[in-house]
Amino acid sequence: MSSNTAVDGDDERPPRVVALGGGHGLHASLSALRRVTTDVTAIVTVADDGGSSGRLREELGVLPPGDLRMALAALCGDDEWGHTWSQVLQHRFSSEGDLHGHAVGNLLIVALWELLGDSVAGLDWVGQLLGAHGRVLPMSSVPLEIVAEVQGADPECPEELRTVRGQVACASTGGSVRSISLVPEAPPASTQALKAVREADWVVFGPGSWFTSVLPHLLVPELAEALVTTRARRLVTLNLSPQRGETDHFRPETYLEVLREHAPKLGVDVVLADHGTVEEPLPLDRVARELGGSLELDRLSRDDGTPRHDTELLAAAYERILVR
Amino acid sequence: MSSNTAVDGDDERPPRVVALGGGHGLHASLSALRRVTTDVTAIVTVADDGGSSGRLREELGVLPPGDLRMALAALCGDDEWGHTWSQVLQHRFSSEGDLHGHAVGNLLIVALWELLGDSVAGLDWVGQLLGAHGRVLPMSSVPLEIVAEVQGADPECPEELRTVRGQVACASTGGSVRSISLVPEAPPASTQALKAVREADWVVFGPGSWFTSVLPHLLVPELAEALVTTRARRLVTLNLSPQRGETDHFRPETYLEVLREHAPKLGVDVVLADHGTVEEPLPLDRVARELGGSLELDRLSRDDGTPRHDTELLAAAYERILVR
Repeated sequence: MSSNTAVDGDDERPPRVVALGGGHGLHASLSALRRVTTDVTAIVTVADDGGSSGRLREELGVLPPGDLRMALAALCGDDEWGHTWSQVLQHRFSSEGDLHGHAVGNLLIVALWELLGDSVAGLDWVGQLLGAHGRVLPMSSVPLEIVAEVQGADPECPEELRTVRGQVACASTGGSVRSISLVPEAPPASTQALKAVREADWVVFGPGSWFTSVLPHLLVPELAEALVTTRARRLVTLNLSPQRGETDHFRPETYLEVLREHAPKLGVDVVLADHGTVEEPLPLDRVARELGGSLELDRLSRDDGTPRHDTELLAAAYERILVR
Repeated sequence: MSSNTAVDGDDERPPRVVALGGGHGLHASLSALRRVTTDVTAIVTVADDGGSSGRLREELGVLPPGDLRMALAALCGDDEWGHTWSQVLQHRFSSEGDLHGHAVGNLLIVALWELLGDSVAGLDWVGQLLGAHGRVLPMSSVPLEIVAEVQGADPECPEELRTVRGQVACASTGGSVRSISLVPEAPPASTQALKAVREADWVVFGPGSWFTSVLPHLLVPELAEALVTTRARRLVTLNLSPQRGETDHFRPETYLEVLREHAPKLGVDVVLADHGTVEEPLPLDRVARELGGSLELDRLSRDDGTPRHDTELLAAAYERILVR
C-alpha cells in the first residue's frame, strides 16, 4: 500500500478532500488543493452580511453567495473557457449607480437559485459552467448570522465583554473576539456537505478568518457531529498573521486552543504552519499533540513580504501530507 | 440545381440567413429560422432606452443589451444545457430593491463587454455558453437614440408634427409615427454585421416594431448600403396587427410604403404576410411588385387569438421560401 488514502482498498483513486472555510483563506486552500487531487469539495460559510452578498441577502432573501462564488472561481477549469468564466464571475461592476460593487457571479448564482429553487443544484450548474475541479457546497441551507463575544470593544473598558452581531461587525471589531455562536442556533446542515465529510479521506480546516470563516462549521450541529465522527483525517492549516480584532495577539497555538474550545471532541491529525511565522514551536507542538496530532512546519508564505500563502508551496505541503 | 441558395456552386450547405430586428419580433423570426437553417446571423437594434437595458446604458455607458440577449436566448442549444442557460439569461430579478427588473443575461453580457472590451467578442462568448444556433451582432458599435416625427401626439392638434426622442417615447406615443432618424446621425456599423449581410443568401426584415426595431438598420449608412447592394435576396415579414402609436391604422401595404420611404433604393424579393390578416391583398401585392418582389400569403398566426406568429407555421413558410 503506497497511499494512506486507499481506505477502500482502491490504491489508485485520488484522495477525497473536503476543505472548510470562506473568503480569501478558502480560495488559497482550494487553489493549492486542486493541484493535489481532482476530488475536492468545499464547504463554505453562509454568514456574510457585507458588500454585494449582504445586499443580495437583504434584497432577495437568499444565502449570501460571495464566499461560494470565490470558492467556485478557485476551482475553475485550466483552459481559456474556465479562466474566462471565472473572471466573469469575479468581475465587479463599478459605477455611481445601483449595481456598484456587485460581483457578477453573485448575481448569476442567485439567478440559478431563484430559477431552480435548489441552492446545491444552482452551485453545481455554475461548477459545470467553469469546468470546476471539484464541488462547492454551502455549510447550511439557511443564511446565518454570526454573533461574537468581544472583549475590549471599548478601549476604555479593556476587560468588558460585549456581544457583536454580524460577520462584518465581528471581523472589524476594535476588541478581541473570544467566542462565537450562530443565529439560528442549530441551523440545518446541507445534506450533501454531511455526505462529503463522511466519505472524505481528509478534512482541511483553514487558513482563513478564524472566527468568521473556519469555526462556524463547528457550530452547525449535524456538521460538527460529522466532522467529529468521520473516518477522515483532519488537517488544520494555521494563518500566517493575526487579523486585527478577530485574532489580535494570537500566538500560533491560540488558533488550536480556540478550535478546541468551540469543538472539544474534535481530534486533529496534522497541524500545518509556516516555519517563518512560528517563532516558538514548542507550545504549538504541545497543543497539537494534545489534540492527537503532529506539527508540520514548512515554508508556506510568499517571499514578497505579504502575509499570504504561496500557492505552490502550500500545494507542495498538501501533497506531502495528503498523498504521501 | 435544386436549391436557390447554392450561390457558390455548393448545393449542400444550408442557406446563410441574416435576420434584422429587435425585441419580441426578432425573437419570433429567430425561433422559426433556427428550424430552417444552421447559419443564422441576427443583426440587432441598439437603441433601447427603457427598462433594464435603459438603466444599464445610463449607469455603465454600454450598448443596451436587452434585444441582443433576447436574440441569443432564441438561438439557444436544443439540449438541457442550452435551455437552462437561456432561462438564466431571461430570468429577471423581482424585489423592492436595486436589482428589480434587471434581466440576468443583460448583466452577464455587460460584464463580458467590460472584461473583454469588445462587444462582438462578448456576445460570441454568450453564444458559446448557450450552444447557440447562429450568431448575434449589434447593428452599430455605439448606443443609438431613435428620434421620431409624430403626428397628433396632442389629440387636440391631430395634424401637428412633433419630435419625440427615445425608443420608449416613440413606441408609446399617443400619436402616429411618420418617420424616424437616429442620433448620432451616421453611426458606425458593426464590421461583422456588414460582412454577414454581404455574404448572406437571404436577409429577413421583420416582424417587429416597425419604426423602432426594423427600420433603424436602414438608417445606419454603411449597413443600409450593404443591405441595398448585397447579392442576398430580401424577405420582408409583415406584422400581424398594428401597434398603438407606432403603426396605428397601418394597412398591410403601409409597412412596405414606410420601408420604401426610409430606403428608396432597397429592393424586396418576397413579402410574407398572414392571409388572415390581409383582407384586401391587391394593394399589398401592387406595392410588393413595385419593390421588385412577390407576395406570399400563408397562415402564420397562432390560433389562440393573440396577434403573434406561430413558430411552426412561420418556420414552414420560411422553409418554403428560403430552401425551396
